[in-house]
Amino acid sequence: MIKSALQAARGQYSPKLPKALRGSVKVVLGEATQSVSDQEAIKELFPNTYGLPKLTFEATTEAVEAKPINVGVILSGGQAPGGHNVISGIFDGIKAIHPDSKLYGFLMGPDGLVKHNYKELTADIIDEYRNTGGFDIIGSGRTKLEEIEQYDKGLEIIKKLSINALIIVGGDDSNTNAAVLAEYYKSIDAPVQVIGCPKTIDGDLKNEQIETSFGFDTATKVYSEVIGNIQRDCNSARKYWHFIKLMGRSASHIALECALQVQPNIAIVSEEIEAKNLTLDDVVTSIAEAVAKRSAKGDQYGTVLIPEGLVEFIPAMKALIAELNDYLAHHEAEFRAVPADEQRAYVTAHLSEANSALYASLPATVARQLTLDRDPHGNVQVSLIETEKLLAEMVATKLAAWKAEGKYNGKFAALTHFFGYEGRCAMPSNFDADYCYALGRTAACLISAGVTGYMSSVQNLTAPAEEWIAGGIPTTMMMNMERRHGAMKPVIQKALVDLNGKPFQYFVSKRAEWAENTCYVYPGPIQYFGPSELCDQPSETLKLEQSK
Amino acid sequence: MIKSALQAARGQYSPKLPKALRGSVKVVLGEATQSVSDQEAIKELFPNTYGLPKLTFEATTEAVEAKPINVGVILSGGQAPGGHNVISGIFDGIKAIHPDSKLYGFLMGPDGLVKHNYKELTADIIDEYRNTGGFDIIGSGRTKLEEIEQYDKGLEIIKKLSINALIIVGGDDSNTNAAVLAEYYKSIDAPVQVIGCPKTIDGDLKNEQIETSFGFDTATKVYSEVIGNIQRDCNSARKYWHFIKLMGRSASHIALECALQVQPNIAIVSEEIEAKNLTLDDVVTSIAEAVAKRSAKGDQYGTVLIPEGLVEFIPAMKALIAELNDYLAHHEAEFRAVPADEQRAYVTAHLSEANSALYASLPATVARQLTLDRDPHGNVQVSLIETEKLLAEMVATKLAAWKAEGKYNGKFAALTHFFGYEGRCAMPSNFDADYCYALGRTAACLISAGVTGYMSSVQNLTAPAEEWIAGGIPTTMMMNMERRHGAMKPVIQKALVDLNGKPFQYFVSKRAEWAENTCYVYPGPIQYFGPSELCDQPSETLKLEQSK
Repeated sequence: MIKSALQAARGQYSPKLPKALRGSVKVVLGEATQSVSDQEAIKELFPNTYGLPKLTFEATTEAVEAKPINVGVILSGGQAPGGHNVISGIFDGIKAIHPDSKLYGFLMGPDGLVKHNYKELTADIIDEYRNTGGFDIIGSGRTKLEEIEQYDKGLEIIKKLSINALIIVGGDDSNTNAAVLAEYYKSIDAPVQVIGCPKTIDGDLKNEQIETSFGFDTATKVYSEVIGNIQRDCNSARKYWHFIKLMGRSASHIALECALQVQPNIAIVSEEIEAKNLTLDDVVTSIAEAVAKRSAKGDQYGTVLIPEGLVEFIPAMKALIAELNDYLAHHEAEFRAVPADEQRAYVTAHLSEANSALYASLPATVARQLTLDRDPHGNVQVSLIETEKLLAEMVATKLAAWKAEGKYNGKFAALTHFFGYEGRCAMPSNFDADYCYALGRTAACLISAGVTGYMSSVQNLTAPAEEWIAGGIPTTMMMNMERRHGAMKPVIQKALVDLNGKPFQYFVSKRAEWAENTCYVYPGPIQYFGPSELCDQPSETLKLEQSK
Repeated sequence: MIKSALQAARGQYSPKLPKALRGSVKVVLGEATQSVSDQEAIKELFPNTYGLPKLTFEATTEAVEAKPINVGVILSGGQAPGGHNVISGIFDGIKAIHPDSKLYGFLMGPDGLVKHNYKELTADIIDEYRNTGGFDIIGSGRTKLEEIEQYDKGLEIIKKLSINALIIVGGDDSNTNAAVLAEYYKSIDAPVQVIGCPKTIDGDLKNEQIETSFGFDTATKVYSEVIGNIQRDCNSARKYWHFIKLMGRSASHIALECALQVQPNIAIVSEEIEAKNLTLDDVVTSIAEAVAKRSAKGDQYGTVLIPEGLVEFIPAMKALIAELNDYLAHHEAEFRAVPADEQRAYVTAHLSEANSALYASLPATVARQLTLDRDPHGNVQVSLIETEKLLAEMVATKLAAWKAEGKYNGKFAALTHFFGYEGRCAMPSNFDADYCYALGRTAACLISAGVTGYMSSVQNLTAPAEEWIAGGIPTTMMMNMERRHGAMKPVIQKALVDLNGKPFQYFVSKRAEWAENTCYVYPGPIQYFGPSELCDQPSETLKLEQSK
């Protein structure tokens, strides 16, 4: 691997470590815990790992008995900046506990455990990856650990390698599965602990215990860098509206955080659209109104941030898609026989009145995509919709209608962007580098403490890193029962944007001003070597959430 | 304006200045110059500004007579990182010459000169914009200064404000127009000098005298940051081919520079495609072969860099587009009467054999776009073609055919990206901040030297900034005669990628290895505060060009 100058320089960085983790550690037991809801159901499903106490680690000068620990680590799901630091934190943590400890990485996600693909991660390998982005040290994958056969297959290699603990680094689903795995291994007295680490750039694995998931900070800073650059261009050329879609299908945390960082003219928060039961036309109209208002002042330019999952949060769109799925499933052959240029009229004629009107309002490309580009099960693929283009086109159509009515007399030209892959493997910010390393060190302490079914937890994150609080949270504590594929399942509650929370409320207090005026902020690229107030800041979301 | 932490920190940065510009300056006259070709024709068109000597500035301890200078500055064309530093360099330069000097900014490009829209740029305004990206201090625009009426209109405000010199910051076209303006004002004895500054992120304003245009360094570093992030994702998930289009229609310098920085699997250089007279199918086949070769080793992922102007460099595509334009111009009504789903067959049936086959090979969306989305003059709009999607789709089709023939047995999934606006207004790298500031200071010296029809020139750019050589180049020296809109015009010769030059030759020596193996480099974001070997490096292109 040829290293860039920055990689070489970052290789020398020592993550800032919470005081509690700098030497020997003692465990402080908290109160026994309950799941966030559905306590009886969760307790029944997790008889061996339910109700455990929260743990906190504190520094101690007492001698701690130590023996070598063998650990297996899995990276599960989409990449997030800082994964390599979790791994180097685990490595340094178990080596600090005992120099004969060993770390194995299972390759390409949970599949590596099931298929026994692994490699030992030695110091020379670890040193190549400290403070770098990506999950390429062992790769990642999306195989779900949900079947007993997988668990048993995994146990074979765990026993063969004398692994004491498995650490699963993943999002809400992966950590749910880790909890189920912990319960299973405990129930059969398998001598292996299972520990989770909270990863996701989407920011939706967050609760009272997990202040933020790792990667969110870096990814949103990368997106805000390029959005800021676009805004500066927008404000220099003064002739385009930029419609910018941001990764994050299941929640709008990324779009909200970027909005707080760059102060765009408009930012859409899907959770609000759903809560207010707004239609696609409502969304389009509100953007068009903002465009018209700025235009009247002579400003024919602006920026709109759009969460990737928007369409799936619009109740009327969900209803349309449900009816489309249902209708096409029962009339596939008939539909296929309709000549191409009559298909749209055919679909419009066969939908209920409300859905028909909505379908007719969609741009031709999107209407075609919904009916033609369906998945192997025949289902409409909402994720294929280029929401940024859909909105830009519908706003243009709306403004053209207003122009014809004499209600608007501006110019509207739109450009579209989508940022996702640009941020998932960025080099972690100092915050994520420190946070991830601390999560890894904490995971090592949890193993040393002998527990299973816990997630590594580092809290007090807006304070300087030395004051961060390290501990463990029983994963069952974050669970509730939800319907998935038709059956009730215990899952970690996903954190949507809290419409009563401080980050959203701050945004609400500012957005009228941002829409009308040009209040752009240009954050620029992540800096690693400058003053602390520039290089060590947590996300705006976290700062607002923890503000008094 | 709310400043980001980085903006605030960058406000404190003092650009590194060449030794020669640190105090009083004396002018060293070089030899009289000739245009690069068509000497007689250019000389005839520029009787007053042709054949002037090159100038170099040297430090002097002699007292220099000084009087206040009034300067007007215009930002012309697309944004490029560092424009604000050119302006702060001019400001500091003319203030150093005499504290009563004044700087006026004409607003929103050359239009501001013609329409008399301007503002005085005072110290408090200048200080807000030092070392920031964007052109928003005065805005930019694309109006071309080509008519005598514009020149005369401009002269009115120049006289009214007692402006001694006009500085036009722009690309090759804007600097060509600046030279024509200089000649015109000189020919009518108007008491105003005209000086150009070489700006363009595309990198195509480059020659023996202009080592690089400003903005190229920063923009390519921003693109390389996000491409590097995508490559790290690619190498972690190991399941996608990323097709990444990069801004730069008239030359492939950006794609080549990014390739040198990130070592992708494939990078296309349009100039090579044209020189070798390759077809679209040749390009698609060579990508598909690389995909198949990696696939055979188990690597179902990779990256392809594509210059924005590719399609216009493929001789066969140019021929197709010419015939389409011609045919549709003469059969518009007939074509419009063809039913939508028969249009493609209709077009295919009416083109010459070679063009018909090429048209038939295009994906449906592109074929439709070429015939339907024409500009107001009825011309095919090549720039609308999403080349990255076109190539991804055609590679998929080719691989599917090979699979059917049993020649290929891999998986191919592609994602596409386009980066342009993300880099044009980025905060300038130290290199661009220093280079632009020096260009501005040099422009002030050229005004002080009393010359007109010159471009500000700073050379020896791979040496430390203190050793850079500042001077002026007669713009006519860079000119030749080219056919534009049917008539021969004097223009600055555009610099395409030199296929015999060191940057391209280095790429050629490496590309087979990069295609087959995974040699990605991850440059990460631009750093401003770290060690010099990290923060002050010029582009790879410049380093290779100036290497012995």
